[in-house]
Amino acid sequence: MKINQFANQLIPGCQPLTELAHLRLLATDELETCQPKELWQRLLWRVDCNGTTDAQHELRLHDYLATPSMALDEWLANDQPITDEIFARVALQLLDFEPALDFSLADPLTDAQGMNLQLPTYELWNQAAVARGFYQLLLTRTKHGQTWLDYLTGQGLLTWTYQLPAKQKPLLVNGQPIACFDPHQFIYEVVYVEMDHDTDFDGQADLIKVEIMRPADSNHGLKVPTVFTASPYNQGTNDRWGEIITHDVNQPLTHLAPDHQASQETKFTNPQRCQAVTGHAQVATETFSNTPGYTLNNYLAPRGYAIVYAAGIGTKDSDGLQTCGSPEQTESMKVVVEWLHGIRHAYTDRTSGITIKASWCNGNVAMTGRSYLGTLSTAVATTGVPGLKAIISEAAISSWYDYYRENGLVMAPMGFQGEDADVLAAETFSRTKRPADYQRITAINQKYLAQMTKAQDRASGQYNDFWRQRDYLPHVKQIKCDVMMVHGLNDWNVKPSNVKHLYDRLQSLPGDHKLILHQGEHIYINAFPSLDFSEMVNLWLAQKLWEVDNHADQLLPNLIVQDNVKAQTWTAYDHWNAPAHQVALGEEIIQFSDRQPETQYQQWCKDPGQWAKALLGQTNRFSYSIPLTALQSDYYQGTPHLSLTVQSSLDHGMISAYLVDRGAERRLTISPTMIERQGIQLGYHWQTDDLRDFKLQAQPSDYKMISFGHANLQNPHDPEFAIDLAAQQWVTVEFDLQPIFHHLANHHHLELVIFGTDYQMSLRGNENITYQVDLSKSSLTLPF
Amino acid sequence: MKINQFANQLIPGCQPLTELAHLRLLATDELETCQPKELWQRLLWRVDCNGTTDAQHELRLHDYLATPSMALDEWLANDQPITDEIFARVALQLLDFEPALDFSLADPLTDAQGMNLQLPTYELWNQAAVARGFYQLLLTRTKHGQTWLDYLTGQGLLTWTYQLPAKQKPLLVNGQPIACFDPHQFIYEVVYVEMDHDTDFDGQADLIKVEIMRPADSNHGLKVPTVFTASPYNQGTNDRWGEIITHDVNQPLTHLAPDHQASQETKFTNPQRCQAVTGHAQVATETFSNTPGYTLNNYLAPRGYAIVYAAGIGTKDSDGLQTCGSPEQTESMKVVVEWLHGIRHAYTDRTSGITIKASWCNGNVAMTGRSYLGTLSTAVATTGVPGLKAIISEAAISSWYDYYRENGLVMAPMGFQGEDADVLAAETFSRTKRPADYQRITAINQKYLAQMTKAQDRASGQYNDFWRQRDYLPHVKQIKCDVMMVHGLNDWNVKPSNVKHLYDRLQSLPGDHKLILHQGEHIYINAFPSLDFSEMVNLWLAQKLWEVDNHADQLLPNLIVQDNVKAQTWTAYDHWNAPAHQVALGEEIIQFSDRQPETQYQQWCKDPGQWAKALLGQTNRFSYSIPLTALQSDYYQGTPHLSLTVQSSLDHGMISAYLVDRGAERRLTISPTMIERQGIQLGYHWQTDDLRDFKLQAQPSDYKMISFGHANLQNPHDPEFAIDLAAQQWVTVEFDLQPIFHHLANHHHLELVIFGTDYQMSLRGNENITYQVDLSKSSLTLPF
Repeated sequence: MKINQFANQLIPGCQPLTELAHLRLLATDELETCQPKELWQRLLWRVDCNGTTDAQHELRLHDYLATPSMALDEWLANDQPITDEIFARVALQLLDFEPALDFSLADPLTDAQGMNLQLPTYELWNQAAVARGFYQLLLTRTKHGQTWLDYLTGQGLLTWTYQLPAKQKPLLVNGQPIACFDPHQFIYEVVYVEMDHDTDFDGQADLIKVEIMRPADSNHGLKVPTVFTASPYNQGTNDRWGEIITHDVNQPLTHLAPDHQASQETKFTNPQRCQAVTGHAQVATETFSNTPGYTLNNYLAPRGYAIVYAAGIGTKDSDGLQTCGSPEQTESMKVVVEWLHGIRHAYTDRTSGITIKASWCNGNVAMTGRSYLGTLSTAVATTGVPGLKAIISEAAISSWYDYYRENGLVMAPMGFQGEDADVLAAETFSRTKRPADYQRITAINQKYLAQMTKAQDRASGQYNDFWRQRDYLPHVKQIKCDVMMVHGLNDWNVKPSNVKHLYDRLQSLPGDHKLILHQGEHIYINAFPSLDFSEMVNLWLAQKLWEVDNHADQLLPNLIVQDNVKAQTWTAYDHWNAPAHQVALGEEIIQFSDRQPETQYQQWCKDPGQWAKALLGQTNRFSYSIPLTALQSDYYQGTPHLSLTVQSSLDHGMISAYLVDRGAERRLTISPTMIERQGIQLGYHWQTDDLRDFKLQAQPSDYKMISFGHANLQNPHDPEFAIDLAAQQWVTVEFDLQPIFHHLANHHHLELVIFGTDYQMSLRGNENITYQVDLSKSSLTLPF
Repeated sequence: MKINQFANQLIPGCQPLTELAHLRLLATDELETCQPKELWQRLLWRVDCNGTTDAQHELRLHDYLATPSMALDEWLANDQPITDEIFARVALQLLDFEPALDFSLADPLTDAQGMNLQLPTYELWNQAAVARGFYQLLLTRTKHGQTWLDYLTGQGLLTWTYQLPAKQKPLLVNGQPIACFDPHQFIYEVVYVEMDHDTDFDGQADLIKVEIMRPADSNHGLKVPTVFTASPYNQGTNDRWGEIITHDVNQPLTHLAPDHQASQETKFTNPQRCQAVTGHAQVATETFSNTPGYTLNNYLAPRGYAIVYAAGIGTKDSDGLQTCGSPEQTESMKVVVEWLHGIRHAYTDRTSGITIKASWCNGNVAMTGRSYLGTLSTAVATTGVPGLKAIISEAAISSWYDYYRENGLVMAPMGFQGEDADVLAAETFSRTKRPADYQRITAINQKYLAQMTKAQDRASGQYNDFWRQRDYLPHVKQIKCDVMMVHGLNDWNVKPSNVKHLYDRLQSLPGDHKLILHQGEHIYINAFPSLDFSEMVNLWLAQKLWEVDNHADQLLPNLIVQDNVKAQTWTAYDHWNAPAHQVALGEEIIQFSDRQPETQYQQWCKDPGQWAKALLGQTNRFSYSIPLTALQSDYYQGTPHLSLTVQSSLDHGMISAYLVDRGAERRLTISPTMIERQGIQLGYHWQTDDLRDFKLQAQPSDYKMISFGHANLQNPHDPEFAIDLAAQQWVTVEFDLQPIFHHLANHHHLELVIFGTDYQMSLRGNENITYQVDLSKSSLTLPF
């Protein structure tokens, strides 16, 4: 087991002693009046939250071993001095690591080092050393994916802080707010923010429902910052409607006529009228009980951050239509930030015209969330809206073209064949959950959706106005807030190109930009014992939102990457990109046929995983594999690029490539494994999270696909400009593969696999096409 | 979608109106002063928990459709009378069923019937009808697996009840306590109960740690009943230690010598001394923050039940060793009941000798839990301990021989090859979590475990003294409490024979005995939209523990069985057992060889699922299949019995049989599918549960194994008495297969598959044995 803590770097001068005193763990005179061992015992008694009597505290110490054979209470009574080893042995037990399983009682110091734990060592364990060492231990992670302080907080250590005057909060430890806000006293409110557009054609500016959970202290003179999650899913989804309109992908690619023009999407108008203001309320009059939460937000809530959710246009209790990533959807989230920042109206309800201010907010807002939620964080950031100080965008789309299309091809996120912008719009249009409201809007929504289906243009797969409206990349230069990005290197849903494009553009902008690349798929990373992501966020947001001078921008690495060979290994880097090297692919002209026997085709359509196994696991006639055994680098980092000179036997075609790591190995699982259900206490009698992490596979696998790319032969250089194409015409197609940050294990090699139809992602018409590739006029460019 | 409510049968006379008044939903004069439509509107406004202003309430009604095209608020303002159809249409929306998806707006009455919902109908919808209809709706289940009342409770409807004087509680609706106890005010306490035995040989009577969560009202004059879950897992588990000592099953069965005698297990002695009482405390001095909970308990907690957990001997913070089902483990749980009932000492801590009483308890206790937890409920019930009024034993073991052995064979629970009593003891011995305590007890525990390994006698698989000590069936006649059993017909971990043996014996005893058979594996059933299990439990426990005169014993069916053909169909029956019919198997002598090629053997050992596919999915040489196509019954219910005349080519052998349902069908999944994560609110801002249910498989399957049995040829009649056996000696072996309650779909037939080694459950030595079966001297007895 390895613990990687990046947010725990600050142990300067007197701070530990002052903060222990603030935590009521150390009295001012104790450094003078107590012997070191007595002080240690007092500290240990004070953090024993479950016992209240001396007998109970005493017995607790009787449960720990100070030496391999002597209990801590007995050892504390003898006259032996504290040593690094004694302290480490007890420390590991306090952190819930188990003797024999997690560390050896004989040599705890070495084992702690092996676990990557920074335990205190001192020449002389005097009183100050004991206090500092204890403080350092409070900031160290237990086996359960939390610092010891947070673990003790879950046992009730900090309940006394709930009663402190609001203005003394938040209490900070090591630059981070601690859980000193009573979650049982949270205030739950709903307000409606008015935006500038009318997206449901009723003549009225759209109202957006906002759900707020904030500490009671924010009613008593403490202005708190806000963490806002924009989630179109939050008011419910229409999974069945989505299934019904999912597109059939078992159809051929077609020749694109040079004069092809996609249909324009519906334009929205400015509203004829806004709500007339009739008065002002000091307190909200609508409440809510539960909303689907993000556990990171639940972790932050008792640390004093107000937590806000909005689902935006086209959702239950809001106005408007679902536009799937359009500027209007972005606006519907931006206006929430504006209200929190004090520069926009909100109302207590949808009809009365009574306004209400976010007077409890300090005006500083961060946005959080994964996938669509992270996407909208990015989108709102590109508006440069005042008040938005930071975003944590996880697995976020930076251009919807990169989500549903690729180089002139319709290309589904893996696992979601047939999904498109219109399907996602239908799935998230939760006004269905209010039957009469839905009845009134049905015809308008159907008409809008039908137009969206045309404008997204599945017939051509070209980059067009529809996708330009949903491309945030041209607006990245307007980003004014700090940005923390998180993305999975195995995320084939929102593919890594999305974060790479954003990351690259941010490099030339001022501001604090962080990126964490993990080895998972489309997941959250805030429940791993091996990485202190929650603490990093708490530290970082303390700087951005509470304006604490904690140097988070400098302390946290700009890039952290999880190693794909070694488990639980997270490493700081300066840059993603390495120099490009061009790799020759061969001298021959190769060919393969895309056509499959009908039963094979049907089977693979039903179970595309079988196709992937046939592609990579065995010799076949529908692909060509090039082992890149001459390459010698251990690390490949950046965006591979492919230049292929190809011809199709028909007047249209697609060329696809997988980059594969070959070599028998117990690789990391790409989905985290459950370690302890509800194992993480996010506060005292508050929400929980399931502790989980990546593990090495039980059985070795022979290969792993690490990157891919696909291109339409009619889009050799640009997804927006198609060339005409004749059957058997040679064309040189240039395209990027998905960016990588890959550790190639010993005795492994990379392999490039070239083929046509991708059963997991592309259209699959089983056409009788033969592809030829002239390898002498083709090359792969790899970054290392 | 089908909803099955068994606990919602009581709508007599004035009760609905009185209870609506108690719920503060109806004022005394409103039946006289309001028109029916006005009354309906008032009731709807009052349950709108999120809005506080008229405008908000009004808007909420504007969201429902009264007719297919008119909103409820508009319709309420016109002069049309309420009809069954109007009420049903609105009711279905209030219950969150969706128009078009779940029901048609045009004909809500027919669709409600199809969903099995009992919606109110009246000749004349006068004021009383509106009130009664509304009351009935409160008791009807929403789409989200809860009654509408419980759903509204999750939104805050009942927070005002928290302030009621303790003695007015619990508030009852339809004979069930409602959630009127504030979960944020729960008291969390730890005490230590002293038992009569000393199981860790320290001379001292063992102390057992007890964790209590109870409403604050129980400190203010209200005596509450207790729901107690005895869980050896609750203080942590040693999964790694368990793995290490898991037995190797890849070894041959051996010939059992007629004079074989198993080793005796270690006997415990009476303690030399008990704790000396030094004083008495009114309040506990130790607390706890979190303990792994059962969501059914969390549902019951805000309804006024104290919730208690204990892990028993050999667990963290308790004394003793892990004995895996022995009478001493039962005693360690029985003493908790005795303390709750006021007839045994407990202490505030482990050393001070200060006693504490459960003065807050009304002396009535029920035990709950699944698997080992349910097992201990059954075990404690067989002691006849005073105070234990009821148990809800889910997927419980009734004899540990039936868990780890079968008819003279070592037979693992499916999925747990190599596990045995000693492995489970090691896994649950959580004194490891207190390193110094573990250090002090390690040698004693190792010695005890080693003796257990001998006494359980994997070499023979015979029923012996060890297993007799862990067989609760001979003691069933001492059960004095009422019993509710729950078991999965596809539970191949704790197999259905366990519940069948208990059920059969209970039939001749007085008392209230209920059984629910579901189509799942080893699971909990309290989160299905299709079954009101939580409400059944609440109703039943109200009678047993609160002593409410609600006729729960008569209202709830004695036997409820989930249909295996139709989804979401739960049916009441009177008896499990049907008459036995003997079925001839053929005239030939058949033979098959148990030996597999080495690579095949290795592969199947690694992945026994592949072996099961080979056994049932294709023709093979290691089994013999007999299609029972002549059978004509639709339902088979009871215990199949097999009589096989067999010989082995060696002087030992095992014979196995699977009963299979053949026929292509989209069968029910045996694991529930997630419907809505955290979709069930168990109270207001309290714990949640994930909504899930069984669904029909997406793709048809050709067959399904529905029962099985295995026997050692040396135990033809009795697992306790082995015969000598020579190679090629004919022997007639008699054994039961697992009990069934099976609906055979149209055009399906049953099939009996006979074979030797069961790679999923038995030892597997890949011996060169040929088995012969004389079908003319064999028969299958089936109940139908």
